[in-house]
Amino acid sequence: MTSKSVVYLDYAAATPLDERVEAAMKPFYRDLFYNPSANYSRAIETKQALSSARAKVANIIGAKPSEIIFTAGGTEANNLAIKGLLTRFPDGNILLSAIEHDSVINPANSFHHKSIKVDHTGIIDTNDLLSKIDDKTILVSVMYVNNEIGTIQPIAKIAKVVAEIRIKRLEEGITTPILLHTDACQASNYLDLHISRLGVDMMTINGGKVYGPKQSGVLFIKAGTILKPLIDGGGQEHGLRSGTESLVNAAGFAVALEIAQKMRKDESKRLTELRDYFYQELQRISPEPIINGNVKHKIANNVHFSIPGQDNEALLFKLDQQNILAAAGSACSASSLEPSHVLGAIGLSDELARSSIRMTLGRGTNKRQLRETIKVLSQII
Amino acid sequence: MTSKSVVYLDYAAATPLDERVEAAMKPFYRDLFYNPSANYSRAIETKQALSSARAKVANIIGAKPSEIIFTAGGTEANNLAIKGLLTRFPDGNILLSAIEHDSVINPANSFHHKSIKVDHTGIIDTNDLLSKIDDKTILVSVMYVNNEIGTIQPIAKIAKVVAEIRIKRLEEGITTPILLHTDACQASNYLDLHISRLGVDMMTINGGKVYGPKQSGVLFIKAGTILKPLIDGGGQEHGLRSGTESLVNAAGFAVALEIAQKMRKDESKRLTELRDYFYQELQRISPEPIINGNVKHKIANNVHFSIPGQDNEALLFKLDQQNILAAAGSACSASSLEPSHVLGAIGLSDELARSSIRMTLGRGTNKRQLRETIKVLSQII
Repeated sequence: MTSKSVVYLDYAAATPLDERVEAAMKPFYRDLFYNPSANYSRAIETKQALSSARAKVANIIGAKPSEIIFTAGGTEANNLAIKGLLTRFPDGNILLSAIEHDSVINPANSFHHKSIKVDHTGIIDTNDLLSKIDDKTILVSVMYVNNEIGTIQPIAKIAKVVAEIRIKRLEEGITTPILLHTDACQASNYLDLHISRLGVDMMTINGGKVYGPKQSGVLFIKAGTILKPLIDGGGQEHGLRSGTESLVNAAGFAVALEIAQKMRKDESKRLTELRDYFYQELQRISPEPIINGNVKHKIANNVHFSIPGQDNEALLFKLDQQNILAAAGSACSASSLEPSHVLGAIGLSDELARSSIRMTLGRGTNKRQLRETIKVLSQII
Repeated sequence: MTSKSVVYLDYAAATPLDERVEAAMKPFYRDLFYNPSANYSRAIETKQALSSARAKVANIIGAKPSEIIFTAGGTEANNLAIKGLLTRFPDGNILLSAIEHDSVINPANSFHHKSIKVDHTGIIDTNDLLSKIDDKTILVSVMYVNNEIGTIQPIAKIAKVVAEIRIKRLEEGITTPILLHTDACQASNYLDLHISRLGVDMMTINGGKVYGPKQSGVLFIKAGTILKPLIDGGGQEHGLRSGTESLVNAAGFAVALEIAQKMRKDESKRLTELRDYFYQELQRISPEPIINGNVKHKIANNVHFSIPGQDNEALLFKLDQQNILAAAGSACSASSLEPSHVLGAIGLSDELARSSIRMTLGRGTNKRQLRETIKVLSQII
C-alpha cells in the first residue's frame, strides 16, 4: 500500500484508498457523472446508483436506506448529529464521554453539556452517566472506539441505560426525547456495526478511515428522529445535506465499508496476533513500558504505550528518520503542544503523556515491519 | 466526454471529470494519502501539497492563500458565507437577489432578509438594492451568473454601491460592517474571477461545475472577515471547516479551476458561435421562440428559450428518448412541480415558464450535436 521502505503505523489517522474502492468510484468520473436530481434517463441511472450505494450501507448496518445520510466526512456527520438535534432543544443538554473526539466535543460546547467520567482504561463510568442524566438530557454521545487508546465502549450496555430512562420518562409523562449517538469512525474496520445490536439512534461512520475516500461519511439516523440541517439548499439527502451528491464518494464509501466489514474478523485476529508479538518484543527491549487503554476491550489495531523518561516528540522524530511513521496521539491535535485530553481523562500524568506513542496497525502491516520497528526502537531508547 | 450517442446539454447541472484533473488527484489515493495534520515527513509532504493547491487557487483569483477555504462543495461554501456571517449579527439582515440559487435563498431565510428585484432579463435593480440597504444590512449576496437563464450580474458595479455605503457608514460613525458575497459557481468556466476587479469580500466556487470533483469547493474570504464555522472539530481550514482534508479534492479542484480559467476566453468564443448557430436554426424551425435572459450580458454556454404552446416536460422526455439531455431549469429543483422562482422573478408567465427549456453547452459540445438537436426538435414541435 505504501512505498516499500515506509513502515506506516498511523492507520487511525488515515488509510490509503483500496484499489477495489477506486474501481467502484471510477464509473462516476466521466460515464455516470450526471446530476442525480436531473430528469433524463442517464441522470436517473445515476440516482439509482446513489440509491444502491445507500441500500448497501443500510444493509451492512441493519438499517433502512432512508435512515442513511451521506455526508462529507465523519466530522460533518458528528456535527450534524449534535447540532442538528440540540438546536431544536435550546434548553436541552448533551452528555458526552470525557474522551470524545474534538468533532464531538467542540459542537457540544455550543450547548448545555456535561462530561461523563471514564476509568483509567478509558471505559465510561455508567454510574456517572446515570447521575448526570436529567430531564433535559436530549442526547448521549459516546464513541464506539477511542481514537487514541483504542478502548471499546460498551455501547449496547449504554443503550440499555438510555432505554430505561426513556421508559421512566414515558411513565412520568415527560415528553423530552433522549437519544444515543455513537461516533463509530475507529470501529468500522474491526467491530460489528449492526445498529439493532448496538441500540443506537445515530451513528457516524467515516469513509477516510476504512480505506475509502476522504471527506466521505455517513450519519445513520433512526427513523422518526428530526434534525435541523447544517447545510441548506437543493434539499438533497432528505433535506439534511444539500449540495449535488458525489456518486464517486457515495459509491466508494459503500464498497469501502462493505470490504472493511467482510474483512473485520480475519483482520482483527491477524492484527491481535501482530500486536501481541509487538508487546512481547517491546517488553524485551524496554525495561518498563506502560501499555495504555483496556487490555480486554481494545480495538485490534491499536498499540498505545508510554516509556517513562523518553520524550515522545524526539522518539517520533527518530522513528520518522528511519521511515517509521507513528503518532503521539490524534492527528487532529498533533500540532498542539497540550497533552491529550484523552490521556488526562484516564489519569496519565503529563509527564507520562509526553512519553506516549500511538501505533495503529492496518492492512499493510506485517511482522517484518514490526520487527523492523522494534529494532529501530531498541536503538533509540 | 460522454458516450458517442449522447448529446449532453446540461453542463450547468454537472460536468464530467477532466482527465487531467483525475491525474492530479491520483497521487493522493495511495501514495500521499497521509493525514496533513500528522507530524512525520510524509505527512508534511501532504500538507505541502495542500498548501500548494491553496496557493494555486489563490493565485488564479488574485487572493492570498490564507483567504482560501476548501469546502465540500458550492452549497456548503454558500452556507458558510451566509450563516457564518449572519449568525454573528443576530439583528443584522441580508439582501439577496430574487434569482439566487436555493443554496443562498434557504440559508438566508433563517435570518432577516430582503429580496432585490431584477429586470425582465435578470439584471439586478441597483436602485432597489440601494433603497433596501439599511444600517443593519450586514451582507449583500448576488450571484455572478444565474444558473437558469445565464444572466451575468454587474458585480463590480454592485461592489461600488456597497463600498459607498461602507464609506457613508464610516462617516456617520456606524460600525456595522457590510460585505458583498457572490456565488460564482456558474461563472468559473467563462468569466474573470479576479477578486480585486470584482470587488467582492466573499466568493463561492464549485469544483463540480468546472470539470473537477463533485463536493469540492472553495469559499474566498477576504482577510479580516470573521465567520462562525458550520462544522467544528480538529480546526482544519483555519478552523472554518473541520475534518481531515481531502487532498484528492483540493488538488483536483485547483487543477480543474486552473484549466477552466486558462480555457475561458477560447471556450467563450467557441460556445458563443455555437449558440448563435443554434438560435439561428431554432428560429428557422420554430415560428416564435422566445429567448430568455439578457442578450448582451449572458454567459457563453447558456441557451434558454420558451416555445409558446409547447409543454417542456413532454419536450424534454422526447429529447431524452433521442439521447439529447437538456433541462427545464435548475437540476436542484428539477423534481419540483412549481415553476422556477427565477422565471417568475423576470416576469415570465407560468404558462411560458412551462414551455421553457435550458440547454447548457460545454467542452464536449460541437456543431454536429447542435445540428442533431435542431433536427430532433423540428420533428417534435
